[in-house]
Amino acid sequence: MNITMILYTLGWLLNTIAALLVFPFLVSLYYKEPCGRFFLFCALIYFVIGFLLTRKRPKNEKFFAREGFVMTAFSWLLLSLIGCLPFYVSGEIPSFTNALFECISGFTTTGASILDNCEKLSRSMNFWRCFIQWIGGMGVLVFMLALIPLTGGQDLYIMKAESPGPNVGKLAPKVKKTAFYLYAIYFALTLAEIICLVVVKMPLYDAVCTSFTTTSTGGFGVRATSLSEYSPAIQYVISIFLFFSGINYNFYFFIWIKRFKDAFSMEEIKGYVIIFWASVVLITGNIIGKGFSAEEAFRHAFLQVGTIITTAGFSSADFDLWPSFSKSILVLLMLIGGCAGSTCGGIKISRIIIYLKTVKKEVAQLCHPRNVKIIQIDNKPIAHNVLRSANNFFIVYIMIFAISTLVISVDNLDLETNFTAVASALGNIGPGLNLVGPTRNFDHYSDFSKFILMFDMLAGRLELFPLLVLLSPSTWRKK
Amino acid sequence: MNITMILYTLGWLLNTIAALLVFPFLVSLYYKEPCGRFFLFCALIYFVIGFLLTRKRPKNEKFFAREGFVMTAFSWLLLSLIGCLPFYVSGEIPSFTNALFECISGFTTTGASILDNCEKLSRSMNFWRCFIQWIGGMGVLVFMLALIPLTGGQDLYIMKAESPGPNVGKLAPKVKKTAFYLYAIYFALTLAEIICLVVVKMPLYDAVCTSFTTTSTGGFGVRATSLSEYSPAIQYVISIFLFFSGINYNFYFFIWIKRFKDAFSMEEIKGYVIIFWASVVLITGNIIGKGFSAEEAFRHAFLQVGTIITTAGFSSADFDLWPSFSKSILVLLMLIGGCAGSTCGGIKISRIIIYLKTVKKEVAQLCHPRNVKIIQIDNKPIAHNVLRSANNFFIVYIMIFAISTLVISVDNLDLETNFTAVASALGNIGPGLNLVGPTRNFDHYSDFSKFILMFDMLAGRLELFPLLVLLSPSTWRKK
Repeated sequence: MNITMILYTLGWLLNTIAALLVFPFLVSLYYKEPCGRFFLFCALIYFVIGFLLTRKRPKNEKFFAREGFVMTAFSWLLLSLIGCLPFYVSGEIPSFTNALFECISGFTTTGASILDNCEKLSRSMNFWRCFIQWIGGMGVLVFMLALIPLTGGQDLYIMKAESPGPNVGKLAPKVKKTAFYLYAIYFALTLAEIICLVVVKMPLYDAVCTSFTTTSTGGFGVRATSLSEYSPAIQYVISIFLFFSGINYNFYFFIWIKRFKDAFSMEEIKGYVIIFWASVVLITGNIIGKGFSAEEAFRHAFLQVGTIITTAGFSSADFDLWPSFSKSILVLLMLIGGCAGSTCGGIKISRIIIYLKTVKKEVAQLCHPRNVKIIQIDNKPIAHNVLRSANNFFIVYIMIFAISTLVISVDNLDLETNFTAVASALGNIGPGLNLVGPTRNFDHYSDFSKFILMFDMLAGRLELFPLLVLLSPSTWRKK
Repeated sequence: MNITMILYTLGWLLNTIAALLVFPFLVSLYYKEPCGRFFLFCALIYFVIGFLLTRKRPKNEKFFAREGFVMTAFSWLLLSLIGCLPFYVSGEIPSFTNALFECISGFTTTGASILDNCEKLSRSMNFWRCFIQWIGGMGVLVFMLALIPLTGGQDLYIMKAESPGPNVGKLAPKVKKTAFYLYAIYFALTLAEIICLVVVKMPLYDAVCTSFTTTSTGGFGVRATSLSEYSPAIQYVISIFLFFSGINYNFYFFIWIKRFKDAFSMEEIKGYVIIFWASVVLITGNIIGKGFSAEEAFRHAFLQVGTIITTAGFSSADFDLWPSFSKSILVLLMLIGGCAGSTCGGIKISRIIIYLKTVKKEVAQLCHPRNVKIIQIDNKPIAHNVLRSANNFFIVYIMIFAISTLVISVDNLDLETNFTAVASALGNIGPGLNLVGPTRNFDHYSDFSKFILMFDMLAGRLELFPLLVLLSPSTWRKK
């Protein structure tokens, strides 16, 4: 294990976060909030440590898959610790566990909160909370990779470990270039949403924060009631951008380089669109007349489907009160998630497509054992190891799901709460049902269970394996 | 598709059931119940049709995997229909859907009931209900195979399609011989339990019926309160036989042929014992003092763990009132199930072992891509297609689970009820939680949802694929 190289990269991470802390500090200056000094204080400390760690380039730049996973896992643990300090040292979130929970929920773009009312936070602290989601959405390491000088091929392994989805969006032959394209699209989406939201008369501060948490599919908001107090126009704009944010960034890249045919023939996009709109139609039909006019039913269904399938986790209505059928659709969407290569969590549409095709093939092969078919997506055969890893992902996902639900049940909350709390944490969504429903929060859980849920959020964001690699004895065994 | 051969075998199935209907008829004679004539009436009809179908041996005996699956699926559909007629024509279960539900729940050894009080049934009808479970437990087709003359190699395919578990218990080189061994062990276990139960002073009728539903891990009982009214001694005997019934029959076979070392080194048995007793200990600790003395807590934990992991589904206490942690353990055991090659349902211990080893291998391989390890069980490498089919099984299991839970939610019952109802149906267990808890029944559901649950029970019993093969268009396509 090349520890020096890992420390060197972690140093860059500290520097990066130190730099990013300037933004909430500027917000605090604008609103004349005294808590701004805590951002400066933290930034300074991070910078000093970061500076010491990055002063000297390691001689041995050898870096393999193992280092990539361990590096990524450590980075996210470090991120969580350094991101939560401003909340804690400022006293705005007095419990360290809660501050850490809120921060991990932020970086992993989960959006689950332990706050009963986020409006009690200062504006700059709330900005930091939303900004954290934006940083975590596309992956802070990918961001860093585009900037810092690395030559040992580390970038590919880190990118693989951090990026969501079975097929890493290798848009360009070089990782740096890919990272650039991803961030360019991410910026563009965010900016477009800010403009649209301001046009429909959302206050600028709200618009910026909400755009951060929409495009990152994070779901933190600046209002205690999430999105339910905003005007219908604002809700529609957010819903539309949620829909866009659930799409594989490869799609936008194809549009960018004018390969429209490739863009619109992507099977994952088709699957996403079908699942998305089928859910909207079913829920609209299910809740119409039950306290909602046709327009309201459609609007809330659109927003709720958008926010759950993309694993953002806003709410415009208390869907915990909806009929069982609508709730079941939402729970299923929690598991499915958005497209690979987007900022979404969950199992991802492309994997679901792989599973469906695998099952179809298995059934056909049972009947006709000699007809061996090859599974294709977008007319390209899927490599055996991609299939294997998609299958293993599913197994690990369900196992972590089951074990977590069991373990947090020691708090003696009901099964529905525990089940959806874990679905929400592991899928990086935010709210669940019942005691963790959209109008409630995660502070019902003991510190012990909160740590389990934090693990789930990190595991979900990093697509399970980096954390398992970190915890596996075989990783640390000397050959 | 060789339809004549399938019809010929279905004819034998009708004959077999006609013959087996003599037993409940004898019971009705003994108890002087007039409903006995319905058994005779049904048996006569089945025999006439069966006789016509089996009069002539088909010339073309070609029979492949496809025919095996279709045959098995059709047989179970036919079984369900002909098994439920006595309930329906006698008027003891007036709704046809309910009679069918009860019968499918019987043959698949689920044990979920739509009756609010099974003591209202006549004794011979209740005997038939329990006997159905015993017939379904080891597989009626396997039973038939041991008796009827088939020469086209059909038996292997049918056995593969009907027997539970990834490794079909090929105890002997010939299928007939294997079927004989399996039934011999099954008989022996049943007989031993009857004797033990009579020794601890259970009435003979109860002892016979309960032994049928213990060794088949079915879980129907002859008392409205399941096992809770019986003495502790009876409850212990049943728990012990439940524990035995969850064990892979290969184990007993090894004991039989005196290969003790092979028997006790089976990894699946070790896994089963660990999961079983760990659960008993955890639940005992969790419920002790909460209305239970130490002995009571242990007894109920032992019985509930035994009945849920083996997917029998008896109850000695209303575990729906237990703490969340105990309930979560039970729900997890519902998914896991007992050993392959036993009469249990669920995913099965051997598959869980395969999954754990696969994940361990995947994590190790991520770090050390060049170290390719081969997964072994009982020191034998697992063939690639066994791994693939175990993975696909898991994916299909969870998919059917998710879709069923969604579909039955149209009845607007709560998520916990729906989730555990499907877990219970698909895992062939019996009770779930909340509205389908041990003191409730499945009559809350609409007929539509009952049909979904019937599908799940059959799918679970046949290990998913025969039904999928039956429903797949590719099966029926001409080459």
